[in-house]
Amino acid sequence: MTRLYNDPATFTEDMLAGFLDANAHYVTGVPGGVVRATETPSGKVAVVVGGGSGHYPAFCGVVGRGFADGAVVGNIFTSPSTQEAASVARAAHGDAGVLLITGNYAGDVMNFGLAVTQLQSEGIDARYLAVTDDIASASVDDVAKRRGIAGDFTVFRCAGAAAEEGRDIDDVESVARRSNDRTRTLGVAFDGCTMPGADRPLFTVDPGTMDLGLGIHGEPGVSSHRMPTAADLAELLVTGVLAEKPDGAGDRIAVILNGLGRTKYEELFVVWKTAAALLAEAGYTVVQPEVGELVTSLDMAGCSLTVMWLDDELERLWTAPTDTPAYRKGRLTETGAKTRSAVAVQHTTSQIVAADEAGSASGAIVAKAISAIAARMVAAEEELGRIDSVAGDGDHGRGMVKGTSAADAAAAAVVAQGGGAGSVLSAAGDAWAAKAGGTSGVLWGAALNAAGRLLGDLGAPDDKAVAAALQAGHDALTSLGGAQRGDKTMLDALEPFITAVQSAVDTGIDWRTAWSSSVEVAEKAAAQTADLRPKVGRARPLAERSIGTPDAGAISLAMCIHTVADLIEEHAK
Amino acid sequence: MTRLYNDPATFTEDMLAGFLDANAHYVTGVPGGVVRATETPSGKVAVVVGGGSGHYPAFCGVVGRGFADGAVVGNIFTSPSTQEAASVARAAHGDAGVLLITGNYAGDVMNFGLAVTQLQSEGIDARYLAVTDDIASASVDDVAKRRGIAGDFTVFRCAGAAAEEGRDIDDVESVARRSNDRTRTLGVAFDGCTMPGADRPLFTVDPGTMDLGLGIHGEPGVSSHRMPTAADLAELLVTGVLAEKPDGAGDRIAVILNGLGRTKYEELFVVWKTAAALLAEAGYTVVQPEVGELVTSLDMAGCSLTVMWLDDELERLWTAPTDTPAYRKGRLTETGAKTRSAVAVQHTTSQIVAADEAGSASGAIVAKAISAIAARMVAAEEELGRIDSVAGDGDHGRGMVKGTSAADAAAAAVVAQGGGAGSVLSAAGDAWAAKAGGTSGVLWGAALNAAGRLLGDLGAPDDKAVAAALQAGHDALTSLGGAQRGDKTMLDALEPFITAVQSAVDTGIDWRTAWSSSVEVAEKAAAQTADLRPKVGRARPLAERSIGTPDAGAISLAMCIHTVADLIEEHAK
Repeated sequence: MTRLYNDPATFTEDMLAGFLDANAHYVTGVPGGVVRATETPSGKVAVVVGGGSGHYPAFCGVVGRGFADGAVVGNIFTSPSTQEAASVARAAHGDAGVLLITGNYAGDVMNFGLAVTQLQSEGIDARYLAVTDDIASASVDDVAKRRGIAGDFTVFRCAGAAAEEGRDIDDVESVARRSNDRTRTLGVAFDGCTMPGADRPLFTVDPGTMDLGLGIHGEPGVSSHRMPTAADLAELLVTGVLAEKPDGAGDRIAVILNGLGRTKYEELFVVWKTAAALLAEAGYTVVQPEVGELVTSLDMAGCSLTVMWLDDELERLWTAPTDTPAYRKGRLTETGAKTRSAVAVQHTTSQIVAADEAGSASGAIVAKAISAIAARMVAAEEELGRIDSVAGDGDHGRGMVKGTSAADAAAAAVVAQGGGAGSVLSAAGDAWAAKAGGTSGVLWGAALNAAGRLLGDLGAPDDKAVAAALQAGHDALTSLGGAQRGDKTMLDALEPFITAVQSAVDTGIDWRTAWSSSVEVAEKAAAQTADLRPKVGRARPLAERSIGTPDAGAISLAMCIHTVADLIEEHAK
Repeated sequence: MTRLYNDPATFTEDMLAGFLDANAHYVTGVPGGVVRATETPSGKVAVVVGGGSGHYPAFCGVVGRGFADGAVVGNIFTSPSTQEAASVARAAHGDAGVLLITGNYAGDVMNFGLAVTQLQSEGIDARYLAVTDDIASASVDDVAKRRGIAGDFTVFRCAGAAAEEGRDIDDVESVARRSNDRTRTLGVAFDGCTMPGADRPLFTVDPGTMDLGLGIHGEPGVSSHRMPTAADLAELLVTGVLAEKPDGAGDRIAVILNGLGRTKYEELFVVWKTAAALLAEAGYTVVQPEVGELVTSLDMAGCSLTVMWLDDELERLWTAPTDTPAYRKGRLTETGAKTRSAVAVQHTTSQIVAADEAGSASGAIVAKAISAIAARMVAAEEELGRIDSVAGDGDHGRGMVKGTSAADAAAAAVVAQGGGAGSVLSAAGDAWAAKAGGTSGVLWGAALNAAGRLLGDLGAPDDKAVAAALQAGHDALTSLGGAQRGDKTMLDALEPFITAVQSAVDTGIDWRTAWSSSVEVAEKAAAQTADLRPKVGRARPLAERSIGTPDAGAISLAMCIHTVADLIEEHAK
């Protein structure tokens, strides 16, 4: 378990401060993560990696020559926000484009995808790739649904080495995609890890057994097995990975036998003894294998085997010199790269235009609602954390508090400048997404932002406008998140609520009455998510364990809806 | 816990095979451990490190340029044998001398000390140093009793870098001693580790508490504390280590914040944030700190802070380039060092001279006794392991089987050549020490060897000779082991037995009768070790836990004595 922390809420910030101090000659902190201590030279593509933290040395430990130019650092097992991804990419970017790479997780895909759009709008040639090496997480016909696990390392490495060679952004992206196409990983877990401050593990594995294919955040595995000998495990992993040999691949391979945190070096070497023999028997030549901890999950017990089928170019990149805080190889030549004097961070702040009188009044009302929601979330933090911890990582309460508090502050700032409902909602959404991180943060942010853009700042929205704004928020959320009804998400509460409001408004009922009378629909639907099972690959929880407990995101959404109804009632008095 | 293994009895061999395969461009296996894959150049001092395994990357992970030339690899948490230490040192030695360094543990000190004597007798300028950085293991007035823990790393590193610079053996030894004098470590443990195949941890720490100063094999700590915050722990460690600033030390320091296996990188960085601030506040400049896993104890939960007070020379060596399987720094220049073609291993085998008729007959009788003892140990392995696991690492039964089996084979070989009792005992002792490793192996080996040398090969020993041989064995054991009565060791059974035999012989009783009538004395004394508490710094067990359980070494000694008495009785029939 994770025992050493100060305030669990600042664990990532504290960790990052210590990491930066210990590695000051390699890295410099920027908002959202870290970049190399030296400036990106003109003509060099920047490679920015990232995702939630808790996986050291992934991801900030591999920022340095021959590897990444920057790493976006989210909270433990939580995607960084769009703003954080864009911030690190901006700082790492020289003048030749930036490739962002993460593992294939919903939150990362959304946030890094939106960051790329933002960066492109600023004139930066930004690209994005999600690594899909985990063969247990989806079938070979459905590769795009596969998660990224230890194969992150081979893909980051090849892309980083290609960029170091001075290749252009098209080449670097092409190398990264080929490396991903040729990398396969199969992992096993023996025991879970415990988040800082949590009183029980994020997930468990039955003693004496092992879960084949269990994800690095406890995502469901493929099957449960009796704990094997080291040799039997080696055979299982080698056979499993080799069965997925890509078309046209040769017989030279890069291999990683990765420890997840509590499965130690000595054990890994015992497994490697057999794995090496089996790979040789199968006719393969292993090029510079890595046996150790490269992509961890706090102190999770387990390991994984990664194979990247090499061609001449990938072999050259895999074996190229590199020098980073946690991974070093070969001999680099001096380049005289310039140490960053001060890190220039550009913040894009949009100018608020004052609305008309009715518009400003509406803006103030919206801000008041957001403020009430923020207060409600502070009160609900513990309860939401408890619900989320049954099947997730227990951080939903914290994420909602971070998001709504930031939204509250942003909304108040817009109101102070006379902004209308649209500007208040958009600013609140942006702040929410930026501070909460993770999946729910970016979804709430996108929904509020879309609702705000629809409403605009003039006048007080009428009943139809409110219903349309709800629908716009919903559409932004589904198009970004890709979830469907029944997937055990906030959508399972949101859709019945919107339908109820829309129906009432359609029959001529005013939006306030419609809202209040639909609260119960939302709350009931949220409670009913207890009967659902989350979809594999989308959700972190151990799917089985979550049955009987509602989705924390649906519950918090119903709380927000209820809070607005309370305000409506109060206002009516 | 350690979950991945094939046969626990071959864990170390399997681990070593996997390590050597994965790091073939760095290291080559030799009997007893590993050496660099390149030959030691003429004029370069060899630095050989070692100790029991289970501490990766210590010790085989730091064999490479700028660091060690070889590592002796014992079984998990068990000292390598004298023969293994000498074998690796011989292979690593070029022509400029060899410095052997281990942590300060009884078994290592004995085995490496004897190896140095052996190497010197072969004309190799061999030196030995035991690292004593653990400030919790003995008071500042008793530094020689302190254990070596993570400070092994700084001492090995400085000695290795000095040897790489081409310094002579006096200089390298002097650097190592100064580095040791200036290195202090304080550690804490939160939870124990489990040996391969064991069904419970080697030791435990009460949940919610931490043991200050607990050794890396579960040796007793100084005090128990409520689990602190990361910041409070940092303060405790920094304050504790800085209080021991060596006389005349300056304000530049090398620092290691070391994780023991299950306390992960993220947590260490959180602790480092505060430690770095406190060290700066205290006026220190930290030079290239290391925050990570450098000296582990399987998957033990805990960490330690090491400070080495630098002077110009130590700072140059600490920051010098190095390239090893697990630790790399800076840029080395090519040297064109020769890759080892085939590792030359010299075995020293002494020629057996046939004894006279009575002597050969005595030799055969001694060999028969050793054979019976070996059979008894096979039957007793599980029971001895169980007793040892209460307070030790549970490997005593295994060690006795390994040692007596090897002694049995060696004795038979001498008998086949017509050797007398002396030669049989000496050869059996050498084989025992070579194969059993650890503390009891080297002690049994020394005792048999000394007894054999005293008896010689001519004729059948008389009563007085047998009593004198027992005393000679005892004296070799105490002079090598340094234990005293009451320290809860085999000595607590051996001394009463010898006294009883000697008294009986003194009153004219023949040695066989004296031996048989003294068995009960030995067994009773062995059982009474249950009331004793092992001395801190000498024994691995958690001292408190061992009260109520006898010492496994005393019990196995009594079994050996009993087995000989059974043979005497059988012979008398």
